[in-house]
Amino acid sequence: VPRLDEDECRRRLGNTRHLVLATVHPDRGVDAVPVVGAIDGSTVWIPVDTVKPKSTTRLRRLANIATDPRVCLLAEHYGDDWDQLWWVRAHGTAQEVAGHDLHGVRAALAARFDQYAMADSVSSAIAVQVTGWTGWSAR
Amino acid sequence: VPRLDEDECRRRLGNTRHLVLATVHPDRGVDAVPVVGAIDGSTVWIPVDTVKPKSTTRLRRLANIATDPRVCLLAEHYGDDWDQLWWVRAHGTAQEVAGHDLHGVRAALAARFDQYAMADSVSSAIAVQVTGWTGWSAR
Repeated sequence: VPRLDEDECRRRLGNTRHLVLATVHPDRGVDAVPVVGAIDGSTVWIPVDTVKPKSTTRLRRLANIATDPRVCLLAEHYGDDWDQLWWVRAHGTAQEVAGHDLHGVRAALAARFDQYAMADSVSSAIAVQVTGWTGWSAR
Repeated sequence: VPRLDEDECRRRLGNTRHLVLATVHPDRGVDAVPVVGAIDGSTVWIPVDTVKPKSTTRLRRLANIATDPRVCLLAEHYGDDWDQLWWVRAHGTAQEVAGHDLHGVRAALAARFDQYAMADSVSSAIAVQVTGWTGWSAR
């Protein structure tokens, strides 16, 4: 079974614009939500943005990580040709970041996503410190 | 904020071939893995197959649900046009199913995926009983 090593996991997740963030929910057990992100060393930055419509920026995912910081990030490729399938899972701990620390984060995100060009496009961010990697490839 | 109602959530998840399954992990908190599935009423069937390469069919996800059956399934659309984004989350409880109950499951999966045409292509299945839906759409 082809397993991906840590460097390859980091490279693939770093090249993927679109991830799934899984968090611990106190009652339902788990939540999962699509996110975008940018990787910097062993940290993955996930914006809480003002770009996509939302009723509040106090998102459920923020309440979840405040209660239990353990998270999992998934990057993957799916297609009808199953020989091309792969996925990378990053485990770690998450923390919300705001204020001054946000400047560099938004710049990193803006380099990947035009949607974050405006200074007020990101209201805070989730910093995931990755502590473990798992990667699978169909071949 | 456009929220999707339960019927629309069920329809979109049912039309999506490729889902993410999030489970409770006893130590790491959460796991997430891409899966394929077929929906039947309020049950989503996820195969444990012999098609994709794996070192064992005793997958981590099966150990996770045996310890804590609470799961979350995510269906979603991502693309560069963020006006088209949407996601649907199904919460529920999961159980492994094997033996006779598997015949109909494999037939339902084979109707969607050529890869499950062979009788021995599915070794068991995860049945997710959906108890709650959440759906978000960018517009």
